[in-house]
Parts: sequence; structure tokens; C-alpha cells
Amino acid sequence: MSSIGKIYLVGAGPGDPELLTLKAARALGLADVVLHDDLVNPEILQYARNARVIAVGKRGGCRSTPQAFIQRLMIRLARHGKCVARVKGGDPFVFGRGGEERDAIVAAGVPVEVIPGITAGLGGLTAAGIPATHRDHCQGVTLVAGHSREGVEPNWAALAQSGTTLVIYMGMANIARISRALAAAGIAPSTPCAVIQHGTLATQRHAVTTLDDLVETVIREDLGSPAVIVIGDVARYAAQGVAESARASAG
Amino acid sequence: MSSIGKIYLVGAGPGDPELLTLKAARALGLADVVLHDDLVNPEILQYARNARVIAVGKRGGCRSTPQAFIQRLMIRLARHGKCVARVKGGDPFVFGRGGEERDAIVAAGVPVEVIPGITAGLGGLTAAGIPATHRDHCQGVTLVAGHSREGVEPNWAALAQSGTTLVIYMGMANIARISRALAAAGIAPSTPCAVIQHGTLATQRHAVTTLDDLVETVIREDLGSPAVIVIGDVARYAAQGVAESARASAG
Repeated sequence: MSSIGKIYLVGAGPGDPELLTLKAARALGLADVVLHDDLVNPEILQYARNARVIAVGKRGGCRSTPQAFIQRLMIRLARHGKCVARVKGGDPFVFGRGGEERDAIVAAGVPVEVIPGITAGLGGLTAAGIPATHRDHCQGVTLVAGHSREGVEPNWAALAQSGTTLVIYMGMANIARISRALAAAGIAPSTPCAVIQHGTLATQRHAVTTLDDLVETVIREDLGSPAVIVIGDVARYAAQGVAESARASAG
Repeated sequence: MSSIGKIYLVGAGPGDPELLTLKAARALGLADVVLHDDLVNPEILQYARNARVIAVGKRGGCRSTPQAFIQRLMIRLARHGKCVARVKGGDPFVFGRGGEERDAIVAAGVPVEVIPGITAGLGGLTAAGIPATHRDHCQGVTLVAGHSREGVEPNWAALAQSGTTLVIYMGMANIARISRALAAAGIAPSTPCAVIQHGTLATQRHAVTTLDDLVETVIREDLGSPAVIVIGDVARYAAQGVAESARASAG
């Protein structure tokens, strides 16, 4: 009987394949099987030299593979002695359900190691030229989901008072409702905002606006998911980000 | 006259040298000069094969090199045609003054590229087994500085109501005051907390406790800077983190 394998829960980072960590690249190289989500850039699979690769996301127009099935599959593979890399976009522990998957693996008695990645929001901000924190403008940064389990909403009123930059993940479908909630919570209409689609990828597009023009800007610029929404004074720096990108790609 | 160089503002990640990104490693390899802070793991300098290395942090007991001097130095080097890697612990745009340095470089007309890193707080949580977000427990995660410019405090009352996991950077010197402020803001005394020192390094130590026992735990366990403080239900997962670490190092 083969000895038990191991499961790596691997963060693939925000999209740019060079933003993979050395540790994640090593785990891919060790893997017999890679299970990856649809937000993972396929270019990183070059590091999975010896692995069978299984897409478990919505790629190809199919419905997402059920969470319970993915967990059973990777645990079964590990019990058959396989080294499994379960690869997620961004960071497995930031809106990635990594906690749930890790708990299921631990409960099954299978060794597991979580490899963090650069989370999509922070990576996307940097690629758009926006510092998530800046001591002239904020006390920190909050990463928050724009849609929540069973319709539970984030406490926008408290977030508006927090003095932190707000980075909203998975918020594009609800952007009109979110911008109304933030305005009702006391965020000034003139507050800088940015929307960054496909952050860190060659296809990245972003726009800078203000809270009262956020929805109109998204419609006018035809920005859609996957994207992060940034609310706060630091968003004003995004224009410089565009200039930088142009220079970086020229040089 | 030599052509103008370029400055990379590079995030070195939370400490574990394998948590460097591929892009950061490449920038180090291109660099003629590396300027690094004291929270950067010297092991990553192996990737700076051709570079003169200058420590600009507090290493060796000296006072920190003034910010303005560092900025002038890297701009002068770039103007002399050098490729400069300015390396910071964690992520340059999360409590790293990267925004200020980027602005100074742009104002000087020097090309600059910011390479994000895994921020110390999120990397440290993962290493301690704590998911920063978990849909059963929170709406997101807030990264906040425990000490602020000119004594301005974060809005602890709003943060306590935000429904997000709080990750406090640079808070150890003020931990008694912070824990009182959080209790006064309505965070229950039984709320799980964790303190993670030297997160992701071989020297990592962490403790799990509750808000009302936070200060006593830090004293009893002799935990000190650099460390991150985590407040929120997800901190209860830290114990599993310890078990994982033991298994990972055994296998």
C-alpha cells in the first residue's frame, strides 16, 4: 500500500504569472496532480512539470465543480499517495475558502500545507499605481466581499467610519447597491474611487472616478468582473499608475 | 553620459525567503545596487548576484537611515544609469512608505516599477494556520497600524463594528492601550486573539488567547516585535496551525 501523500493549498497570486512565489512554484513542481480554479492563470502550469492538471472551475462554460466533490477528490488522491497542489487565484486564505478546505483535509488526517499568494486586491491596486495605505491618507486597508453568504451585507456604516481604504472583492454585480450604501453611510460623494479589472494581467484596465460617479464610470468604461473596487483617498494615485505602466512597457 | 537607470520598489514578503515572488527575484538579479530595510531576510540577497548591497535599516544598532537620504541616494544612482532594487519587508504599498518613495521617484523623472510582496500580516496569519477571512466568521479583513503618525489613533470603535478580522501591525508597544480601546469599543472579552512573532520564519512563535487575556499572554509567552496581533473569531484556528507546522517540519 502506498504511503499517504500531501496536499498543498497554493495561492497563485493576482494573475501575472511572475507574481507566483518561489514556494508555490516549487510545490507545483512536486505535484502529481494539480487542481485549479478558473481564476488561475494557465501560464503558471508550466511549473507543474510532472502533474496531471484538472480544471475544477467554471472554465468552458460548465457549472462550477461542487466544493464537496473537490474536497473528496483531493483527499482521495492524497490517500493514494499523490502529491496534490490545489491552486487558487490570489491567496487561499483571503476569500478563497481555503479555511474550509484546510479543515476538511485536516479532519481526513491528510498532511496539508498552505502557501500564501498575493491577494488579488492588493496586487491589483499596486498594478494600478495605488498604495493601499499611505500615512497621509488612511490608517490601514480593509479587504471586504461585495457579496456575502445568505445576503448578509458588510457593515458599510462602520467601514465608512473606519479610516481605512476599502478594497471590495466580487462587488461588480452589486456596485449600484454598494455605492448607495457607502453614500448613505456618510462617505463623501467626492471621495476618490477606482475600479481595476484583470489587475496585474496584460489585459488590465482601470478607471479612476469619485463615489458619486462610480456606477456611471463602470458603465461608460465597460468594466466588468473580475475586478476590485477601491474607495478612499489613495485611489487618486491611480492616474500615476497608468503613466508608470506605459513607461514600464516602453522600457 | 550614461542613460538613465530604473528603480524597482520590491516587496520581499513576510520573511520566509521562499515567499519572494518570481518577479522580485528577477528584479534582484537585474540590480546593480540593492538598498534593503532591516526587516528583509538577508537570504533573499542570494538572488542579487551582481549587486552592491547597502543596508539602510537599523541593523547593527545604528539609527535608521533618514527617509529623505534613502530617496536621494536611489534617485542619484538611477540617474547614473544604475538599476536599483529598493527592497522592503512585506509589501511596499502596505505600511511600507512605498507610496511616498514612488512619488519622489516619479517627481524626479526616474522610471519606477513597484513589485508587490506578500504582506507580513497575511503571510503571518497563514503560517499560524489562521484564515484571514472565513465566510462562517467575518465579512473581510482589516490591516491597520497600531501606532500612527502624530498620535492619531485608528477608529477602534468603527473597526470593532466592521465585522472584519483585525490584523494589527506595529502594535506590540501599545498592546495594553489597544486591547483596552477594543474592549471599550464593544469587542467581547472572550473574542479569540492571536499574536504571531516572526511570522513565516523558522523562529516563528505564536500564541492564541482571548481579548481579556491578550496582554497577560504576551507577557507570559515573552512575545515581542516584530509581530502581528489578530483579533477575531478566525484566531481560534491558530491551534490547528501549530499542529500543521509540526507535521510539515517532520515530513
